[in-house]
Amino acid sequence: MAMDHAAAEADHLAAERAAARFDVEAMKVAWAGSRHAVDVADRMARLVASDPVFRKDNRTMLSRKDLFKDTLRKAAHAWKRIVELRLTEEEAGLLRQYVDQPGYVDLHWGMFVPAIKGQGTEEQQKKWLPLAYKFQIIGCYAQTELGHGSNVQGLETTATFDPKTDEFVIHSPTLTSSKWWPGGLGKASTHAIVYARLITEGKDYGIHGFIVQLRSLEDHSPLPGVTLGDIGGKFGSGAYNSMDNGVLRFDHVRIPRDQMLMRLSQVTREGKYVHSDVPKQLLYGTMVYVRQSIVADASKALSRAVCIAVRYSAIRKQFGSQDGGPETQVLNYRTQQSRLFPLLASAYAFRFVGDWLKWLYTDVTQKLEAKDYSTLQEAHACTAGLKAVTTSATADAIEECRKLCGGHGYLNSSGLPELFAVYVPACTYEGDNVVLLLQVARILMKTVSQLTSRKQPVGTMAYMGNVQHLMQSKCAVKTAEDWLNPAFIQEAFEARALRMAVNCAQNIGQVANQEEGFYERSPDLLEAAVAHIQLIIVTKFIEKVQQDIPGHGVKEQLQNLCNVYALYILHKHLGDFLATGCITPKQGALANEQLGKLYTQVRPNAVALVDAFNYTDHFLGSVLGRYDGNVYPALYEEAWKDPLNETVVPEGYHEYLRPLLKQQLKLSRL
Amino acid sequence: MAMDHAAAEADHLAAERAAARFDVEAMKVAWAGSRHAVDVADRMARLVASDPVFRKDNRTMLSRKDLFKDTLRKAAHAWKRIVELRLTEEEAGLLRQYVDQPGYVDLHWGMFVPAIKGQGTEEQQKKWLPLAYKFQIIGCYAQTELGHGSNVQGLETTATFDPKTDEFVIHSPTLTSSKWWPGGLGKASTHAIVYARLITEGKDYGIHGFIVQLRSLEDHSPLPGVTLGDIGGKFGSGAYNSMDNGVLRFDHVRIPRDQMLMRLSQVTREGKYVHSDVPKQLLYGTMVYVRQSIVADASKALSRAVCIAVRYSAIRKQFGSQDGGPETQVLNYRTQQSRLFPLLASAYAFRFVGDWLKWLYTDVTQKLEAKDYSTLQEAHACTAGLKAVTTSATADAIEECRKLCGGHGYLNSSGLPELFAVYVPACTYEGDNVVLLLQVARILMKTVSQLTSRKQPVGTMAYMGNVQHLMQSKCAVKTAEDWLNPAFIQEAFEARALRMAVNCAQNIGQVANQEEGFYERSPDLLEAAVAHIQLIIVTKFIEKVQQDIPGHGVKEQLQNLCNVYALYILHKHLGDFLATGCITPKQGALANEQLGKLYTQVRPNAVALVDAFNYTDHFLGSVLGRYDGNVYPALYEEAWKDPLNETVVPEGYHEYLRPLLKQQLKLSRL
Repeated sequence: MAMDHAAAEADHLAAERAAARFDVEAMKVAWAGSRHAVDVADRMARLVASDPVFRKDNRTMLSRKDLFKDTLRKAAHAWKRIVELRLTEEEAGLLRQYVDQPGYVDLHWGMFVPAIKGQGTEEQQKKWLPLAYKFQIIGCYAQTELGHGSNVQGLETTATFDPKTDEFVIHSPTLTSSKWWPGGLGKASTHAIVYARLITEGKDYGIHGFIVQLRSLEDHSPLPGVTLGDIGGKFGSGAYNSMDNGVLRFDHVRIPRDQMLMRLSQVTREGKYVHSDVPKQLLYGTMVYVRQSIVADASKALSRAVCIAVRYSAIRKQFGSQDGGPETQVLNYRTQQSRLFPLLASAYAFRFVGDWLKWLYTDVTQKLEAKDYSTLQEAHACTAGLKAVTTSATADAIEECRKLCGGHGYLNSSGLPELFAVYVPACTYEGDNVVLLLQVARILMKTVSQLTSRKQPVGTMAYMGNVQHLMQSKCAVKTAEDWLNPAFIQEAFEARALRMAVNCAQNIGQVANQEEGFYERSPDLLEAAVAHIQLIIVTKFIEKVQQDIPGHGVKEQLQNLCNVYALYILHKHLGDFLATGCITPKQGALANEQLGKLYTQVRPNAVALVDAFNYTDHFLGSVLGRYDGNVYPALYEEAWKDPLNETVVPEGYHEYLRPLLKQQLKLSRL
Repeated sequence: MAMDHAAAEADHLAAERAAARFDVEAMKVAWAGSRHAVDVADRMARLVASDPVFRKDNRTMLSRKDLFKDTLRKAAHAWKRIVELRLTEEEAGLLRQYVDQPGYVDLHWGMFVPAIKGQGTEEQQKKWLPLAYKFQIIGCYAQTELGHGSNVQGLETTATFDPKTDEFVIHSPTLTSSKWWPGGLGKASTHAIVYARLITEGKDYGIHGFIVQLRSLEDHSPLPGVTLGDIGGKFGSGAYNSMDNGVLRFDHVRIPRDQMLMRLSQVTREGKYVHSDVPKQLLYGTMVYVRQSIVADASKALSRAVCIAVRYSAIRKQFGSQDGGPETQVLNYRTQQSRLFPLLASAYAFRFVGDWLKWLYTDVTQKLEAKDYSTLQEAHACTAGLKAVTTSATADAIEECRKLCGGHGYLNSSGLPELFAVYVPACTYEGDNVVLLLQVARILMKTVSQLTSRKQPVGTMAYMGNVQHLMQSKCAVKTAEDWLNPAFIQEAFEARALRMAVNCAQNIGQVANQEEGFYERSPDLLEAAVAHIQLIIVTKFIEKVQQDIPGHGVKEQLQNLCNVYALYILHKHLGDFLATGCITPKQGALANEQLGKLYTQVRPNAVALVDAFNYTDHFLGSVLGRYDGNVYPALYEEAWKDPLNETVVPEGYHEYLRPLLKQQLKLSRL
């Protein structure tokens, strides 16, 4: 093994890195957004990677209990480091991200605190936020119930006002009303924002939020009337099992009236339900914020998977030699490129559309503050749709990257099984993707119906105003190279999205009952919504590469990736483009031809393009994705760490293998 | 909770079952193949389900070591029952299937024994098979290496003949030559079929198989020169972690010359390499057999996932009411139907094409025995392609079924995470799906090139002989109902497959170097291969429903499902059909319209159609898929079994939560 160790010091990907035709450092800046962003991320990533408490190589081998304890330990240690080092909010957020283990802290900062900020009165914020900021309480967000997910209006938990005591009585009237899924609820949280039907003066006023203490601050035991537990193991080993998703039942639990979140509406001392003058549209800001962060997470998860698959595809060799000579790098195979490079391009595409969503959030916030609600609907469609499309594509892509690593991708040490298992809930939480796409479709249908009016669509829907042209435009592409022209791509995607939406509207229009028509055509509506969202992603990528981007060759690489993304989507959804007559079969074939040429251009830059994500080996958590490419000795060493290898002869040999081999199984006479 | 328990006795799906318009018992026979098949499967399934040793509800909670020990226990117990009850080979196979836990036994019976049967001389069979049949030895199949997967010719392990001692010296010359992945190798097997480069008289004769003893039959310790271990944790909890996929290195291990598998070639006492007169084509029979069983497994895994998703979609309710009234069954949503019913149809489609493959295996075997190799290539393309297409579709479908169950599908108690994790390797083992599809494509290209000659394509490729007609045929569909005509479907699928193949051949022909052309067009070739295989699946389904199928309404249901499958594939790959001009955009829209109507017809029969798979709750292993539909109380009860719920206050509270809450984390001064 001496030779293997010597080899471990070499960079097995050096030749790949030398072949890149662009400035990787400049690409890191383009990816991260700024030099500052690169530096601070780098600092936090190394801080985490160098700290033994944050090791995660053993995570998939821990029992549920040990994994949870490990999560508590990491959370406490992270908080300690944040305080000790006086980290800024940005630094603290990045540190938590690089710790890379789901836990109660995510919900405390990501849902509990924002809910109080968004829905609490100033007085409530003043009381509760300092407690939360110092972790004197730990909070979670208890909305979904055993029998109720996406449909918030269907929740059954009740909060009945008792004017005699000036309290709300929180109660779980049925089994299906048990709160179910909230992260951090099962074991860690002391408090929760509980959503319940507000009942006062005998009337049900629908779902409202309440701050409810769940556990004693002295000994952490559940308060009287509160039943708490973990809902059990989830997909994968490691993965989301570090989180105590919980179950919660209330047996007539009383809380003071002032623990109803009262920014938008209140219950008075007498039990009157009254609205405040705060417009409820303000809550949309939070939703846009949460969804833009989900899109950012999508590009992060996807880029991790792609980084692993690209590096290992450059190391792994297979076939291509007749008699025992060196085989061909798998990354040289066109089939590998045609599956992997579109995912590399998608990682960049999602990154840039995520950046743009950050801008949109600022824009929406400013407009809301000025009580300008004119772009709210469009912004909602856009964020809901981008959440759905990027998370679904990312979940599929992680699994595709795993398959692209061949058999070894199935090993936990590849990092890909856990990455998939921990990522897929993103398709369901914060709005199931299908439900969200149907919301996009509804807004699309409304917009189409208004096209003949004077009300012109705005923002990402503005193109729909160009309906006269787009319904009859003919794609002017004549050669494969023509597809490199962003104007042709843009128009083809606009025409496809608009024509699909208009087709749906026409088909719905043929049914007497519009709701029935919407129901009947809902699978088509999903496709139209996806087409609209893909147009947004393509548009934002094109806009990005039309900016000045410093660094040798950086802009050219991004242009290639932008074209790969667009033409890959075009090829994948060729049926849409042909069925709507946006392009001809010949033009579709030319796009495919151009795609092949683009792969050839991406090939020498592929490893450098994933290096630009700037991930540490600790964060990647993958033997296959190691920066130095020294995969095989590392895989070999990793294997021996499995608990099953603690003994050469396995436990159970004497009971179950030896009697079998020695024909000494005790048989019953039958 | 008293009410919940009372409810547990009711059948929550009774209304669904009453609504079915066909004879479920007769459908069970159609699914299983015969009354006998239903009965024996039923008997074995119940035998397993009623035996506490075979419980599997705790599987995802076991540590790796406990899970492995549990697997050894189940294997020994299964063998005990097989012997005690004098089960037939058919019964024993079914019993093992219903035990439903990957383990060394699978490789012993599925690879070790068949390899000796297929590649061993009569003498070798006489010596080794009785030992294997009685489990006096346990065998596995050691082919793949750390650095070498699909490309068998790249293997590095050597078997050098030493004429002085009449022995082979088995050796692992490099780290990457370590045997890696073989199931049962890590801990359980005493013997392996080892594939190694045969070297004699200084010449490398390529890869051959050798029977090598690995462990002492006395104490199970590895023999001198043999290094053995498990390769570590794999995707998911439970799942394939019950299997001891292993690593194996040889340091000049000597075996007698007669342990080379010598049916096809031998090394003489003097070290001469000689071929026997047995044609190597005989080995293809085994490959066809293994792959037909993989296709059968695909329909089994897919139908399990679909059964869970259909039943739970009938129980789960969401939206559809304005003010707290009962919500709508999720199964009534068109979006749910359009995602789920095609998978239900696929399960039936794969089942029937699997049945047909069994016939093909018999046919191929008979022809091989008669030294008729004329259909071998076509049979190879067909089995390789069906393996690839059905396993990829099944892996994707299981994950889609999980998503279709909403958040609860993410819980281990839904059964779907483990089903996915345990299934996905099927896309990689026994031929990576992409590699297999490229083999199909090569045969397609060869067939196209011979179309002008007198050599007419046979079997599943016979349609290609109809090239004159299919290259210019126009689809005659005028109404949505026309798509119910199997002749129209058949012709559209034939034209699509043929035209895609011919397009590829033409594009390749434009490149001077054919190999380069094949490489350049390999992504298109994959698509052409898929089109060809989907045609086979559609054709075999159509042929099935054209037979007499007894039972009220059974044939009608299968016709519906056949149409759903075909039109779903057509819609999904609309780009293929339009780009090749096989159908018009209008005809594509009509197909989609018809698909919606078919969903309406499937809807009332959906639950009964999955009941027809006749799976016990034990085999399904899913709280969501329970036969009685009493999902929520069961989910609730299941949660409390998690080890994390052993204490109300979690381990780690005093070390990591309390100090945080009490601001008592010990901070370093920095």
